[in-house]
Amino acid sequence: MLKVIAEDFIKPEFVEVVTPLYRELVDRTREEQRCISYDLFIDQKDAGHFVFIEEWPDHQALETHCQTEHFRRLVPLIDEYRRAEGSYILMEPFPAAGSQVG
Amino acid sequence: MLKVIAEDFIKPEFVEVVTPLYRELVDRTREEQRCISYDLFIDQKDAGHFVFIEEWPDHQALETHCQTEHFRRLVPLIDEYRRAEGSYILMEPFPAAGSQVG
Repeated sequence: MLKVIAEDFIKPEFVEVVTPLYRELVDRTREEQRCISYDLFIDQKDAGHFVFIEEWPDHQALETHCQTEHFRRLVPLIDEYRRAEGSYILMEPFPAAGSQVG
Repeated sequence: MLKVIAEDFIKPEFVEVVTPLYRELVDRTREEQRCISYDLFIDQKDAGHFVFIEEWPDHQALETHCQTEHFRRLVPLIDEYRRAEGSYILMEPFPAAGSQVG
């Protein structure tokens, strides 16, 4: 399982412009066959700080997502309004008690 | 609903020391009556970068969590091994289509 946090920083005056773009991105991504979850949140202290929390079965599913029509069309449109470079973290679950570590 | 991302940065040589502390923190927090979810992940590129993804019904539930015996005992123990200040983001869900914005 692959967990992803992806953060976008949008100029505050363009939040209303990107909102429908994000909505379409979320809706279409959730329709992807190998998407487990794809949720978007907004920082309570910064209305232009958008945070995706995603779950994919593996890296291949994430790579497929990044090649979809909706991703390739919508992400560059959103990026036109960013105020800083986005960032992302790829993560694995903390091992449960009793599982092999290392 | 309140979504939280909390990040810890642990010195790599102490990851094995903090692992049982994190495990107890996760297990006990999940037993809290008002905890919706409390999941811990590890950055695939940095074994000392621990990331909590949490969900609480409201701020009060998060404040209660921070006052529990397990939080007040375990977090300072974990913090002894950190290499940098932790960070956190409090977030709300991106509004679904048709909901009021602004």
